[in-house]
Amino acid sequence: MLTPSQRQALRTIAEGGPLSRSDLAERLDVSKAAMTTLVRDLIQDGILRETETVRGLGRPSILLGINPACAYFVGVSLIDDPMMMVLTDLNGDIVAQASLPRSREPLAVARDVAAGIGLLLEGKRVRRDQLAGIGVTLSGLVDPSQGTCLQSTLLGWQDVPLAAMVEGATGLPTYMENDAKAVAISQHLYGHARDVRSFCLVSVGAGIGSAHVIDGQLYRGRRGGAGEIAHCTIEIGGRPCRCGKRGCLDTIASVSAILGEAASSGLPCQTVAELEALAATGDARAVRILHHAGEALGLAIAHIIQINDPELILITQDEAPLDGLIGRAMRQAIDAHVLPLSAGQTPIHIVRTQPDHWARGAAGLVAHKFFHDPDFF
Amino acid sequence: MLTPSQRQALRTIAEGGPLSRSDLAERLDVSKAAMTTLVRDLIQDGILRETETVRGLGRPSILLGINPACAYFVGVSLIDDPMMMVLTDLNGDIVAQASLPRSREPLAVARDVAAGIGLLLEGKRVRRDQLAGIGVTLSGLVDPSQGTCLQSTLLGWQDVPLAAMVEGATGLPTYMENDAKAVAISQHLYGHARDVRSFCLVSVGAGIGSAHVIDGQLYRGRRGGAGEIAHCTIEIGGRPCRCGKRGCLDTIASVSAILGEAASSGLPCQTVAELEALAATGDARAVRILHHAGEALGLAIAHIIQINDPELILITQDEAPLDGLIGRAMRQAIDAHVLPLSAGQTPIHIVRTQPDHWARGAAGLVAHKFFHDPDFF
Repeated sequence: MLTPSQRQALRTIAEGGPLSRSDLAERLDVSKAAMTTLVRDLIQDGILRETETVRGLGRPSILLGINPACAYFVGVSLIDDPMMMVLTDLNGDIVAQASLPRSREPLAVARDVAAGIGLLLEGKRVRRDQLAGIGVTLSGLVDPSQGTCLQSTLLGWQDVPLAAMVEGATGLPTYMENDAKAVAISQHLYGHARDVRSFCLVSVGAGIGSAHVIDGQLYRGRRGGAGEIAHCTIEIGGRPCRCGKRGCLDTIASVSAILGEAASSGLPCQTVAELEALAATGDARAVRILHHAGEALGLAIAHIIQINDPELILITQDEAPLDGLIGRAMRQAIDAHVLPLSAGQTPIHIVRTQPDHWARGAAGLVAHKFFHDPDFF
Repeated sequence: MLTPSQRQALRTIAEGGPLSRSDLAERLDVSKAAMTTLVRDLIQDGILRETETVRGLGRPSILLGINPACAYFVGVSLIDDPMMMVLTDLNGDIVAQASLPRSREPLAVARDVAAGIGLLLEGKRVRRDQLAGIGVTLSGLVDPSQGTCLQSTLLGWQDVPLAAMVEGATGLPTYMENDAKAVAISQHLYGHARDVRSFCLVSVGAGIGSAHVIDGQLYRGRRGGAGEIAHCTIEIGGRPCRCGKRGCLDTIASVSAILGEAASSGLPCQTVAELEALAATGDARAVRILHHAGEALGLAIAHIIQINDPELILITQDEAPLDGLIGRAMRQAIDAHVLPLSAGQTPIHIVRTQPDHWARGAAGLVAHKFFHDPDFF
């Protein structure tokens, strides 16, 4: 178990890069003598290591970095079938990947995760006792404090205590979070949102998700519902949504909605990219569908900006390329629906995600615990 | 200047009511001996006082309360003409009120505040050296760290360093904040949002304002823009707004918009209450205008719930009574536009405000500094 000052030292190095003992002492406001002892213990435990020597005017100064091999994290995504698993080090770099058919039966999922860990470790230098924990992410409502999936339409689950099942099957501490929320934590720790204190993540794929980091912390809301922009009413009296109401953002701008609309317009495209290609040839139906989707997404993001004024909107896209018409319509709509004074002021950053995106987010969840949770490690 | 532990003790008593020394030691996780010293100093300085003796099974225990006379706060509202000023004690109770014609000339405002303090103290037992500071609130964009009004359409100001001017005229530390944000801080400290960690304040009056408290802290956003729901586009292509775009919430649901629409429909009402009375007699035009306004307000609040999932929506109303048709339409729209699972789950609390509402909020701003800001007092 790390002491609070050891954890703070680790966090400071993780955020600020390699630092000398005296820089670290200054940032943590402790004496150099105390810092020397603290660092000595962390080096002995294999958590810190001396990375390089910087020579300047005075005495050469030795920089301290985190030994990325001091802890490894397992990330599991139940978003798609197959279920994706990754093994990452403390820097968030991928050490191994595995995928297994995704079961919808919770105990089978727990057993599969245990089997997957065997696959991840196969032929790697990582030992089982170096695994700090498992993160699991899924599409749905999660209670992370209980490790319970409160509700997932995709998996057909209600009140499933999956974390305890996975802990039972693997013997490792297990944490759960909703998909967009896990990715937001991970992007704040390792990714494109490292340098901001408050941002909003919007993930555009088969469905639409969102999550807020506010003042450096994930903001979950009253019951984990913060970020449910998929069900903002964007068109009063619009298309029926699977949630029971009409005109939700999800019914217009999700990949499922876009491809569904294309099919019923006689454009049986398999991907949004195909529909974009069709629009580029001047097909009026394709143009209309993509424009409609981009406008709806832009209006919802404009609402987020008006309501929360984040430092950054970070959009992750997997199947829905936002570099074509849909992205242009989205940006136009954002600028048209925020205060004219603020138009163009909020950075909109679009990231094309890899298939292991969600599993990485799940691993980042555990890495975040490692750096921040006093009850962990 | 208070020490951090003294400030924490004060805050704990302010939030938890009178407490015994041993309760306080337990909550602050310090030894009883240390607490005895800390309390002795605070009693000597006239900040704490022994309020009552509770007798139970063991030794009688003496409860400690805050001496409300240990500090007084001046609140100034530039929202309306005349300018309102209040003097409050540490419990947020009003000791005196004053009003003066509101100038739009910053230096004149500063001089008027100085004159107003004279009026507030006249005939009261409060001495000038007991004033802890001045809070000023106005409608517009404020940079509280610089004490500057960045922009106020109402006052015609841009980059006005009013706090420094008021400090110059009065010799007292002065703090500024936007109107809705000041009221949110004050409602969290003293009012209807005392018991929640995260809530959204929506103020409905001549204009519409909003502010978020998230995890106990005011959340201002990137540039103080968090809470600008007045300019959420609620009707694409709707009525032109003074901000330059169309269909903003303010163009439909503010008191100015409602009365303007009534006038142009041939219903020259002076207040929303008059329009409600007319609607109650079955006047179709009045019904349509009020219903339209309530629906727009409800849709915007539903967006806030979907995006932020607050523990509470606290609506303050001054000129716009929300207990009639407009309020019913608003509640229906909220329920219709949040996830059906969540309908009716977020408490919506409506408070009728008094004319001194904004000035109280401004005083609360300074009281909040008193309890939370280590550089203050």
